[in-house]
Amino acid sequence: MRLLLDPQLNPRTESGWRRRWFDIIYRHDTPSARNFDLLLIVAILASVIVIMLDSVASIHARYARELLALEWMFTVLFSVEYVMRLLVVRRPLRYGLSSWGLIDLLSILPTYLSLVFPGSQSLLVVRILRMLRLFRILKLTQYVEEGGLLAGALWRSRRKIFIFICAVLTVVVIFGALMYVIEGPEHGFDNIPTSMYWAIVTMATVGFGDIAPQTPLGRLVSSVLILIGYSVIAVPTGIYTAELASSLRESGREHPGRDRRGCPECGLEGHDPDALHCRHCGRHLPAAMG
Amino acid sequence: MRLLLDPQLNPRTESGWRRRWFDIIYRHDTPSARNFDLLLIVAILASVIVIMLDSVASIHARYARELLALEWMFTVLFSVEYVMRLLVVRRPLRYGLSSWGLIDLLSILPTYLSLVFPGSQSLLVVRILRMLRLFRILKLTQYVEEGGLLAGALWRSRRKIFIFICAVLTVVVIFGALMYVIEGPEHGFDNIPTSMYWAIVTMATVGFGDIAPQTPLGRLVSSVLILIGYSVIAVPTGIYTAELASSLRESGREHPGRDRRGCPECGLEGHDPDALHCRHCGRHLPAAMG
Amino acid sequence: MRLLLDPQLNPRTESGWRRRWFDIIYRHDTPSARNFDLLLIVAILASVIVIMLDSVASIHARYARELLALEWMFTVLFSVEYVMRLLVVRRPLRYGLSSWGLIDLLSILPTYLSLVFPGSQSLLVVRILRMLRLFRILKLTQYVEEGGLLAGALWRSRRKIFIFICAVLTVVVIFGALMYVIEGPEHGFDNIPTSMYWAIVTMATVGFGDIAPQTPLGRLVSSVLILIGYSVIAVPTGIYTAELASSLRESGREHPGRDRRGCPECGLEGHDPDALHCRHCGRHLPAAMG
Amino acid sequence: MRLLLDPQLNPRTESGWRRRWFDIIYRHDTPSARNFDLLLIVAILASVIVIMLDSVASIHARYARELLALEWMFTVLFSVEYVMRLLVVRRPLRYGLSSWGLIDLLSILPTYLSLVFPGSQSLLVVRILRMLRLFRILKLTQYVEEGGLLAGALWRSRRKIFIFICAVLTVVVIFGALMYVIEGPEHGFDNIPTSMYWAIVTMATVGFGDIAPQTPLGRLVSSVLILIGYSVIAVPTGIYTAELASSLRESGREHPGRDRRGCPECGLEGHDPDALHCRHCGRHLPAAMG
Repeated sequence: MRLLLDPQLNPRTESGWRRRWFDIIYRHDTPSARNFDLLLIVAILASVIVIMLDSVASIHARYARELLALEWMFTVLFSVEYVMRLLVVRRPLRYGLSSWGLIDLLSILPTYLSLVFPGSQSLLVVRILRMLRLFRILKLTQYVEEGGLLAGALWRSRRKIFIFICAVLTVVVIFGALMYVIEGPEHGFDNIPTSMYWAIVTMATVGFGDIAPQTPLGRLVSSVLILIGYSVIAVPTGIYTAELASSLRESGREHPGRDRRGCPECGLEGHDPDALHCRHCGRHLPAAMG
Repeated sequence: MRLLLDPQLNPRTESGWRRRWFDIIYRHDTPSARNFDLLLIVAILASVIVIMLDSVASIHARYARELLALEWMFTVLFSVEYVMRLLVVRRPLRYGLSSWGLIDLLSILPTYLSLVFPGSQSLLVVRILRMLRLFRILKLTQYVEEGGLLAGALWRSRRKIFIFICAVLTVVVIFGALMYVIEGPEHGFDNIPTSMYWAIVTMATVGFGDIAPQTPLGRLVSSVLILIGYSVIAVPTGIYTAELASSLRESGREHPGRDRRGCPECGLEGHDPDALHCRHCGRHLPAAMG
Repeated sequence: MRLLLDPQLNPRTESGWRRRWFDIIYRHDTPSARNFDLLLIVAILASVIVIMLDSVASIHARYARELLALEWMFTVLFSVEYVMRLLVVRRPLRYGLSSWGLIDLLSILPTYLSLVFPGSQSLLVVRILRMLRLFRILKLTQYVEEGGLLAGALWRSRRKIFIFICAVLTVVVIFGALMYVIEGPEHGFDNIPTSMYWAIVTMATVGFGDIAPQTPLGRLVSSVLILIGYSVIAVPTGIYTAELASSLRESGREHPGRDRRGCPECGLEGHDPDALHCRHCGRHLPAAMG
Repeated sequence: MRLLLDPQLNPRTESGWRRRWFDIIYRHDTPSARNFDLLLIVAILASVIVIMLDSVASIHARYARELLALEWMFTVLFSVEYVMRLLVVRRPLRYGLSSWGLIDLLSILPTYLSLVFPGSQSLLVVRILRMLRLFRILKLTQYVEEGGLLAGALWRSRRKIFIFICAVLTVVVIFGALMYVIEGPEHGFDNIPTSMYWAIVTMATVGFGDIAPQTPLGRLVSSVLILIGYSVIAVPTGIYTAELASSLRESGREHPGRDRRGCPECGLEGHDPDALHCRHCGRHLPAAMG
């Protein structure tokens, strides 16, 4: 019976330390579980800050050893946590191959690998992925519903946004090729991929200015591209806003006052919260709740 | 009877290979037609990538011959497809002069022309227009309805966006001339067209920085222009969002509350939740459920 | 009676050439009036293009005389038009002091003044204001209603946008002073007004890059300012979209189908356009119009 | 009784000059109170402009003494006002420790401190905080309701915007680390914090261009980041617009169709257009007009 409710629990550990640690690690509603979550958030943020600081040359020059020690401390901590997660769960392999399990593994592996392949900088990026682990914990808080609403609206907009990105990329390819022919390598438009990078930077109104048109014709074409981008930036906002407004309405958040009382006489619903009588037949309504 | 359903079919080819190829090229609901579509998408994307790679100096230096061979291969492929399209359709001339027919032609012509006028770089842009052919195929997929919704809202916004672009251009002309007088050629504002290019780049919040005001007065005027642009960027988004929200509502997506009662008499669905009678036949409806 | 309908008409000219020219200049619904409008649009656009071209050094060097001749031609044309407007109108002084009348005057005056004060460049900006005259003509076309809708929503948003601009300017002053202290003149933040210019450029996501933070602290503060600007750019869009959606709804554009038929039996309104029976009492409805 | 209405009034000063000055300083509905408010707005704006001008090197060189005298004049004025505020209020300590009281103190303290620690530039930023005092006065005008609507929508969006900022910062950390590895210090991506600064500048479409990718891979990754930012800029706008639209609707501005019928029995207004009976007392309502 218990197992049905907590299907992830390792059946060998109905009682004893495994049971206790399962509750601490995988549940989030007891004081010790909350302390564990909080500790994990602090450890993740601290380890990410250590990675950042280590990349600053002046800090690395002075505190390389201390930072390395901290990094190993966090790695050992996360390793212990990873092993515990595998031990107390009912299906360790399934957890290990899930996306959360892989992120857990990826966040400790690079430090061990750096013993084998020393000086490998690119492992650094992988280590920073441990930041994603924060979302597992955030997922379980009061923000989950709000986040779900936002993500739901994004998800329902996915097809429209896909079409939009396709249209943007087509414009980017055509204007990229056009600007490559007009401006050419002497003005920084070295080849079509570079021109396309410029077109994306321009159309999204970023405008680094590392590459900029210098011929009158190039500037005219750029102005047209900018005006297209300016009109078109409305599209994803429009898509998303319309979907989100629709979500909010569905979830009843837009009619916080509309109560659910039906008229006992004629069954009409949708009365104002301060209504005492049915607006259709005049019958006295039962008192509104909350 | 068959011809009425497939009006584009060449009447001379009610049966035989023409009939078969018409179905493959112009229809999209049989396995062979789908394979043809897929092959075409791959070929278009690959040929566009070849054009891009060929523009990179280092790649061109090493693989010029291979890329030229690929380009000719794709050109021959698209030529064969173009001829087939003309052969199997009922009115070849009409197809050839339609916008899709012209795009098909433009995507093969430049390669042939490069034999006559060698080294002509500007033909390259024309070749890249073949990317537009992708949309013909995308048009026929499940994305058509979503795309239609987006395009429909843009289309209904066209007058408002036209007025908006007119107003923006007027501001651009006036601020362009103003900045030309204030900053002058010594700070990069060489003439009014260049100043207008700067004003567009600034107002659309692109801000390359290739030209930037350097006098206090010029910076003050720029700040005003930026604040105008910042307030005004809301306008196309507002237009588009309002239209799109209206489209979504009309298409019934926003009325999740529309009940599912079908009229027992005439089967009509989509009644208002407070309807007591079918709006079509007047038959009394069963009570709506929550 | 006639005068009541055309109150601007000069009473001395109930008939004759003045009457005819009043109709041509001030009315917009006869063929000759439309031709006059069209001629005016072309002349305005052409004269603005002449001013632009004249500012390009290479063109000025070669065609200075031709452009000057054209400018004088347009000035004489607009002068004749201005005098005609004054002659045929009932209250010439009132027209001359109206905003349209002043714009008309400002668009011809600079050319005459250039005879008295030769080489005065700043008169050029004034001349380009003649572009505003286009709006008088556009005002009278089919775009007037759409434009009115947009302007109406902007007008109703004015207080909210004013508050928003105040809040933005306060942030700009505080962050400008902060960055001036942090970065100082050695990194281009010469004084607080310059820092404020930078803060506006940054917050509005223009980002010229002519001035950019170079200290770690300055970059941190910039990042905070950017995130504030990024969250806050939503506000004018939100204000405007909400107002515009409300306008569209009021103008009935959002319920293009909802007809105006009331039920003859129970008076219920708001039926679907395809309804044959009242959804409340089941009574047969009269046929919907249009 | 009087004290209940004006709870802030100092009880020792039921009459006399304190009473009079309390009315002038803390009330806003008498002519002298309005004149006081106006004077304060002018003094605040003038003193902020003095601080700005003093930071301009050329002006400081010529008018340092005059500006210092003005600064002291404003400081004395604000000090007198601050003391008056403390004297006439019922609980001076409570006022002094409120946020408005602290801002009042912070806006005069730096000038006195500059006597003790001369040449301290960073006090300047603190002085400019006196600009915030403007909002106390604006709060009491007709703009308060509009501002409350905007702030209310922002406040209700706070959780969603917090989640959004978290997601943006995660993307910033990951892309920052990625670009640090790809581009490295030789292209300006000196360390991860700098890379993160670049990622924020890029994602928010500011794009200073002081740091820009120069390798093909870096430009590809940048393009992906830009497209993410471009799609994601819609989210805060969507959140805010949906909340604001909801606020406007609740505040009755969006229900222009709400009819104007008052209940003949109880006088209640704001009935639904299809109401036959008063929703409060059940009395039959007169028929609604179009």
